[in-house]
Amino acid sequence: MQQLGRQARQAGREISKADSGQKNEALYNIAAAIAETREILAGENRKDLDAGRANGLDSAALDRLELTPTRIDAMIEGLKQVAALPDPVGEISNLVYRPSGIQVGQMRVPLGVIGIIYESRPNVTVDAAALCLKSGNACILRGGSESIHSNRAIASCIAKGLGEAGLPEQAVQVVETTDRAAVGELVRLQQYVDVIVPRGGKSLIERISAEATIPVIKHLDGICHVYIDGKADIDKAVAIAMNAKTHRYGVCNAMETLLVAESIAPAVLPVLAEKYVEKGVELRGCLKTCSLLKQAIRATEDDWHTEYLAPILSIKIVADIDEAIEHINIYSSAHTEAIVTEDYTLARRFLREVDSSSVMVNASTRFADGFEYGLGAEIGISTDKLHARGPVGLHGLTSLKFIVLGDGHIRQ
Amino acid sequence: MQQLGRQARQAGREISKADSGQKNEALYNIAAAIAETREILAGENRKDLDAGRANGLDSAALDRLELTPTRIDAMIEGLKQVAALPDPVGEISNLVYRPSGIQVGQMRVPLGVIGIIYESRPNVTVDAAALCLKSGNACILRGGSESIHSNRAIASCIAKGLGEAGLPEQAVQVVETTDRAAVGELVRLQQYVDVIVPRGGKSLIERISAEATIPVIKHLDGICHVYIDGKADIDKAVAIAMNAKTHRYGVCNAMETLLVAESIAPAVLPVLAEKYVEKGVELRGCLKTCSLLKQAIRATEDDWHTEYLAPILSIKIVADIDEAIEHINIYSSAHTEAIVTEDYTLARRFLREVDSSSVMVNASTRFADGFEYGLGAEIGISTDKLHARGPVGLHGLTSLKFIVLGDGHIRQ
Repeated sequence: MQQLGRQARQAGREISKADSGQKNEALYNIAAAIAETREILAGENRKDLDAGRANGLDSAALDRLELTPTRIDAMIEGLKQVAALPDPVGEISNLVYRPSGIQVGQMRVPLGVIGIIYESRPNVTVDAAALCLKSGNACILRGGSESIHSNRAIASCIAKGLGEAGLPEQAVQVVETTDRAAVGELVRLQQYVDVIVPRGGKSLIERISAEATIPVIKHLDGICHVYIDGKADIDKAVAIAMNAKTHRYGVCNAMETLLVAESIAPAVLPVLAEKYVEKGVELRGCLKTCSLLKQAIRATEDDWHTEYLAPILSIKIVADIDEAIEHINIYSSAHTEAIVTEDYTLARRFLREVDSSSVMVNASTRFADGFEYGLGAEIGISTDKLHARGPVGLHGLTSLKFIVLGDGHIRQ
Repeated sequence: MQQLGRQARQAGREISKADSGQKNEALYNIAAAIAETREILAGENRKDLDAGRANGLDSAALDRLELTPTRIDAMIEGLKQVAALPDPVGEISNLVYRPSGIQVGQMRVPLGVIGIIYESRPNVTVDAAALCLKSGNACILRGGSESIHSNRAIASCIAKGLGEAGLPEQAVQVVETTDRAAVGELVRLQQYVDVIVPRGGKSLIERISAEATIPVIKHLDGICHVYIDGKADIDKAVAIAMNAKTHRYGVCNAMETLLVAESIAPAVLPVLAEKYVEKGVELRGCLKTCSLLKQAIRATEDDWHTEYLAPILSIKIVADIDEAIEHINIYSSAHTEAIVTEDYTLARRFLREVDSSSVMVNASTRFADGFEYGLGAEIGISTDKLHARGPVGLHGLTSLKFIVLGDGHIRQ
């Protein structure tokens, strides 16, 4: 791991200097290499699937592991999309003259070396490599042991693409060992690694945060709320509340708790409840909700704290926006919250006062996503407050240094 | 400390909503309160000075502790300057329509609660409070035990100023105990504190980083380099190299190592050496330097790693910019580096390739400072790579959340 680290640091210095054309060439080369070797890739992936079945992986895990032709196409498309994004490196902003005569500005620069630790989905290998490469960072990728054959095959495509573009192959290194201790070593390699991005379940992320001596960009729970305000348009409220909960259940930007203003609850909740039950969503409500909806059972204190990732929804009737924000302050994981309202002043208040990584007005929480936001892709979604909040794309893999231009200026 | 944390969290929520006018009013009120009580302040400060003398503090420590009339004026002036800065909170950037129809942008928001741990200089209490307040953050300030009387007196001015402006006094809390365990507790109060900013010597910062379970904005060494390139203008090179070393010795942005291109060394080093020796600066050089300068003694490997903070300078003659950057990569603390050159291409290369928080062309490293950069003030200088690099002003105490504006949009 030490050697991987040293190589990454060195490759990081080179890749940070690479020009945009060269980085894009590498991305297109990798796409071409994947397209050319898709049969081999599928074969290696089958080895992982067979081993997974033999080891008793459940069907959801096997599904995440599988590289279908469509998913291989998506990997290729993703590489081309990242190539098409503007290069963030070297961008200079706010360059102004100061009274002393010096010119001061900020330049966007790579972070250096990124360590990414993820679970079974092998397409993360390509997505993560593409974002790191484009943002001028070297990376060390540590995928799940169950996807080792797929990851090795993808890694050789990446190495080929980098090499053909004249960039160091060590700019993207895939940890070849399935030894669990490797993760523990990686997250303490502070001399060579600048930031760790874990992608996976909460337990993985908590374990890594506890062990790491390097800064971690964390993505913990997504306990997302939709608040239907008294001045909401009923049609929009129904559409958004349905979409936020039922579009996909197992994702972090799905709504877990619905807050409804008391004044509008009788008009909106029965309509919603019928639709939810039709979709097979279990409803758990506060006392007022239960007296309004025969379909709801009583929610416990635990429910407000729970990211179900399942067809279950907790519902609370609140007096007004103040009680809604208060509830969010206490129970939200600061991922994504939305208000549905036609009231200008309340919309502004919600945007300003709700302290989550994404705050929305009249839109489904499901939009909290790097592609939807135009970041091209995301390396994760940060629920931290420092550095990056929300979907982390190219900018989140860079920071700003100060630059000073003078003409022999000295400080008086 | 738990109670302080809870109060800070609550006050943080309120201060994050406060409008710019109210925050500025509080800053002016605090300035007025200090101006009105300057006699009392000076009296309390004398208690600290007397205790310090009795406890055997050295003259440098006593100097840092003293609140002279000029320093009290500077505190008042600093408050007014922060009031005059634009309010960063709520600033919306990059708000664009996406193909889905939603409008996505980013809003600058406070971090929440900042814990600041600092050593003897009591004026930090006012500077830190002013920056946190203006950026919509609550703060918990823990000054050195040797300045406790001064800090308490300043704290009551701050509380008065906040209260008169209708803001919660708990938005700025000064830890009243001199118990050392309080620091250990503060840096683990992750439920209530979002970031820790230590200001002080390297040992304080290292101890806090090791203990903290909260993110720390660190400022470690300032091993700053000036590289005099072969195409440098000799006059500019001499002015900058003298200013960077001798303007002030004990500061983090002073030059510690001078790198000189071999081709220009005979023309510039003897002139510089004479001036340095006149100022009482001890010179420690590489072999080539020593053969050129009779005033220099041989530098050891340790010298290249050392932040002298004293009238000592290490000097190395290098072949070219590549060797200079290589040396910087190995020995720099990534604080501030400068090149002196008239060469356009080398200036661009140095700006791009040197990975320090401030990178300069033809300017003295002494400019690396929040005031000089126009940040109004600084809460510290970050040598970290994530979140903030270089002087940390109002922006460094905020982050960006995503906002989404829709009209009933749902994800397809």
